[in-house]
Amino acid sequence: MTYSEQLLGISNAIVDVLEHVDQTFLTTVGAPLGSMTLIDEEQARSLYSKMTPAIETSGGSVANSIAGFANLGGSSAYLGKVRNDQFGDIFNHDMASLGVDIRLPPASTGPSTARSHVLISEDGQRTMQTYLGACLELCLADISEATIKSPKTLLLEGYVWDIAEGPALAKKAAEIARQNGTTVAMSLSDSFCVERHHEAFEDFVRNDANIVVADEDEINALFSTSNIKEAIEVLSTLDVLFAVTRSEKGSVIVHGNVTVEQAATKVEEIVDTTGAGDAYAAGFLYGWTNDRTLSECAKYGTYCATKVIQQLGARIEKGLLDNFS
Amino acid sequence: MTYSEQLLGISNAIVDVLEHVDQTFLTTVGAPLGSMTLIDEEQARSLYSKMTPAIETSGGSVANSIAGFANLGGSSAYLGKVRNDQFGDIFNHDMASLGVDIRLPPASTGPSTARSHVLISEDGQRTMQTYLGACLELCLADISEATIKSPKTLLLEGYVWDIAEGPALAKKAAEIARQNGTTVAMSLSDSFCVERHHEAFEDFVRNDANIVVADEDEINALFSTSNIKEAIEVLSTLDVLFAVTRSEKGSVIVHGNVTVEQAATKVEEIVDTTGAGDAYAAGFLYGWTNDRTLSECAKYGTYCATKVIQQLGARIEKGLLDNFS
Repeated sequence: MTYSEQLLGISNAIVDVLEHVDQTFLTTVGAPLGSMTLIDEEQARSLYSKMTPAIETSGGSVANSIAGFANLGGSSAYLGKVRNDQFGDIFNHDMASLGVDIRLPPASTGPSTARSHVLISEDGQRTMQTYLGACLELCLADISEATIKSPKTLLLEGYVWDIAEGPALAKKAAEIARQNGTTVAMSLSDSFCVERHHEAFEDFVRNDANIVVADEDEINALFSTSNIKEAIEVLSTLDVLFAVTRSEKGSVIVHGNVTVEQAATKVEEIVDTTGAGDAYAAGFLYGWTNDRTLSECAKYGTYCATKVIQQLGARIEKGLLDNFS
Repeated sequence: MTYSEQLLGISNAIVDVLEHVDQTFLTTVGAPLGSMTLIDEEQARSLYSKMTPAIETSGGSVANSIAGFANLGGSSAYLGKVRNDQFGDIFNHDMASLGVDIRLPPASTGPSTARSHVLISEDGQRTMQTYLGACLELCLADISEATIKSPKTLLLEGYVWDIAEGPALAKKAAEIARQNGTTVAMSLSDSFCVERHHEAFEDFVRNDANIVVADEDEINALFSTSNIKEAIEVLSTLDVLFAVTRSEKGSVIVHGNVTVEQAATKVEEIVDTTGAGDAYAAGFLYGWTNDRTLSECAKYGTYCATKVIQQLGARIEKGLLDNFS
């Protein structure tokens, strides 16, 4: 079997607008610490007018994983919707410059490229207020044999279900994947997202996904379990490979009867927790698409996540595996 | 005399696109280390396609000084041209959020907002490739009693002379300033810029400027002197207040017979030299507009420059003077 590339990501293409804030600001905005809230353009404008100077950088959860995967040396492609505006240019530039194959041209009409106002608290946690803009225009017609091709693995993020045609296009992408022998992986995005789309996620995980990457909270939200022990019991009954991240408690891989526990690496100082899960997914899938053992996949994931929390910014840098052992 | 504000800046409104590069990249691009080269939109596109992922942030030399001045607690205003696009939004947002009064509305037609591709070398030096875009549309008609008002000090940057109507609009701004009792200050921008506009700069410095802020290289380029001693001899014959920065050799203030030398502050590690001159100008003019002695002005300038070279990014942050002594 010849694959078009090792990994294709389908997700919301977003430019991050980063600003340091204090708790008072979050209270004023009415945003729960660590949450991701969807806002409309008017709310985005109002929020931005309250923010002090910021910096802009490409973001998006699975988009970060795809960029990271490319930086690890994997071949990858990306499918998401931007507008042909300056933020769209930034997003596509940053992907293309890493060698990621961009599958959709920027839209020439419609809402502007998505932006996420990332409010970084004193403790390094991020609270996101996201205007999805052009992302919401991603539609069924964008998903075809020509745009999906035949990747070894397809990675979808839960946030795609926030798009009107998202549930349908995810199903269509999974169907094309199955025909090509492509493995379907899903990132659950965040526990609020799981709650928004509980039924659809459960259906997709049980019927379409081969791999699920998620943190402990997301898994508990999805299966209505209250701790990791309960969760593992449920996960082991499904024919799905689960990689569950647990912050400082490490991660656990569950595939039927097989359970692999991976300890976290101790770090002296956490600079910025964002992108830890995305980096874990990049590393885990890099191992997986290179036919490594589950234990090795977990080690790659942990290594990438450990690196990303010790830097500012959510995307892992080139040459990361140079010192991997 | 009631002033509309302490400081009004007229300059090129630019968004910086920052990327770390090695010497090979600079050689390929053909850019002399530390230079600022003007490029057209096609060249900007070509350069950007060669760059790896970058981050975007508001920039521009005198724009940095105005933002810094506001963060020091001074009242300030800004006059420069952006387009009503996403980079223009970023630029104006960052200024307005600091309380800077924006004097011109964004253009609704014409070239896009300017961007400077800032190539940061391993030693922290910056090489800039700048597409001026909307900046070049700044014109004589934008300069009036209504847009200049009556600031205590007007600060123009040398880069304004790169605009077609730049020399004329600088003269017009200086004329309005004189009528209002506004002090005219000029930043010489960089020594390549001095060489591009040698005659016009000499005329403006001798006939319009009351204060000139520049580094040693720029002063030597302007007066065809070869060292600081020769330069001071020339400067002391003019009825202009000169603040000359000399990197690790500190700075020297020359006003006729009066010469004030200010030592540099030793720093353990220089993170990023960009914005050192802009920060010095902010501090120096903050002292000056608050009627401090020349020695105190130099101390403010040095304090700000010292801070900015120990951080990533060219703009000094709020509360900087909290620990000034």
